[in-house]
Amino acid sequence: MRRRKKPGAKEKLLGYERYVCVEPQRLKGKWGAYFGNTNPIHLELGTGRGQFITTLADLYPEINFIGMEIKEEVLLKAVEKAAEKNLRNIAFLWYDINKIEEVFSQDEIHRIYINFCDPWPKKRWAKRRLTYRNFLEKYKQILVEKGEIHFKTDNEKLFEFSLNEFSLCDLRLANITFDLHGSHISGIEDKITTEYEDKFSAMGMKIYRCEAVKRN
Amino acid sequence: MRRRKKPGAKEKLLGYERYVCVEPQRLKGKWGAYFGNTNPIHLELGTGRGQFITTLADLYPEINFIGMEIKEEVLLKAVEKAAEKNLRNIAFLWYDINKIEEVFSQDEIHRIYINFCDPWPKKRWAKRRLTYRNFLEKYKQILVEKGEIHFKTDNEKLFEFSLNEFSLCDLRLANITFDLHGSHISGIEDKITTEYEDKFSAMGMKIYRCEAVKRN
Repeated sequence: MRRRKKPGAKEKLLGYERYVCVEPQRLKGKWGAYFGNTNPIHLELGTGRGQFITTLADLYPEINFIGMEIKEEVLLKAVEKAAEKNLRNIAFLWYDINKIEEVFSQDEIHRIYINFCDPWPKKRWAKRRLTYRNFLEKYKQILVEKGEIHFKTDNEKLFEFSLNEFSLCDLRLANITFDLHGSHISGIEDKITTEYEDKFSAMGMKIYRCEAVKRN
Repeated sequence: MRRRKKPGAKEKLLGYERYVCVEPQRLKGKWGAYFGNTNPIHLELGTGRGQFITTLADLYPEINFIGMEIKEEVLLKAVEKAAEKNLRNIAFLWYDINKIEEVFSQDEIHRIYINFCDPWPKKRWAKRRLTYRNFLEKYKQILVEKGEIHFKTDNEKLFEFSLNEFSLCDLRLANITFDLHGSHISGIEDKITTEYEDKFSAMGMKIYRCEAVKRN
């Protein structure tokens, strides 16, 4: 059942001026100035309820985090988490990932996280997947040299598709795992989960993960 | 149960002078002369009972095929298949893959097939896997530019390991599939199977496949 939109989510969201950037296009190329430092910027695409990114931001104060999400009700949850932890190194964009190049300039992003994006299972929907080649070319534009895309999914077909798309776009694959929480190679960061991941891992679903690195 | 070696397999094998190259080191850099043409050479590592390579050799007379296998009883079956089909574009090496660089010179091979190699499941055995980085560096030496490694396995862990090793050795991945015979992207060549593959596919096991391409 699709829930009705809660009234007032948009207004509440925009009330968090410290965290939610309105008109982020004006900050293109100026994100360092926005954060007031030259720390690397890590971007999560489809940040959802924000457990993943707010946990990271709390752990790594020397990194700036940006979460992008188009659904305002969901994004509100993420913003509330950041506010609760009083994080200073995080910003949220209520924005469409299709237009990512309007918001970031070349070499502005050090790392992109894509966690459990919509698999768009039908073949004719392939272009909508966040790991489709057209998206990857946009990501490559905004990533620094050797910048990384960290990708997680529970959908085997989407993972298979994404490995091929990453390779096709000449991104170097690394740390491919077919069972993230069952493997022993994980670092600390791999143990930081999304809300969705917790739910599906608990049900015994395998989590696929890889990194795709921009070449020199 | 391990079968006892059949007596005489070695003698029978060496009787097939037309197909079995003794002392193949002397042909290093001279395989074109051996086949009597300049056609590309495709090499199968661990050729087993030879269904895969003899089927290919029959289909593609304009390509030279070489099958390497260390177990003489098994190799004998492959050689018998080639003889039965009266193939002219195939040779077999009763040789250890560890010493592959003794047999082929730089840029001599256009494609390498690795089908269902031993997964050597214990971590301390990783170096014995035919997709371990040390092997891959040897393959890169003998492959032409843009030369390809075509890899198939039914072992998920070995496939995961191999994808990482290919990437680590800067081979570009392509046509990755997690379910070869269940997918619809297969070409003719993908439908050519090994004896092992027929058996395990019939049992419902998924076959993983990918290509790894040597960069310019």
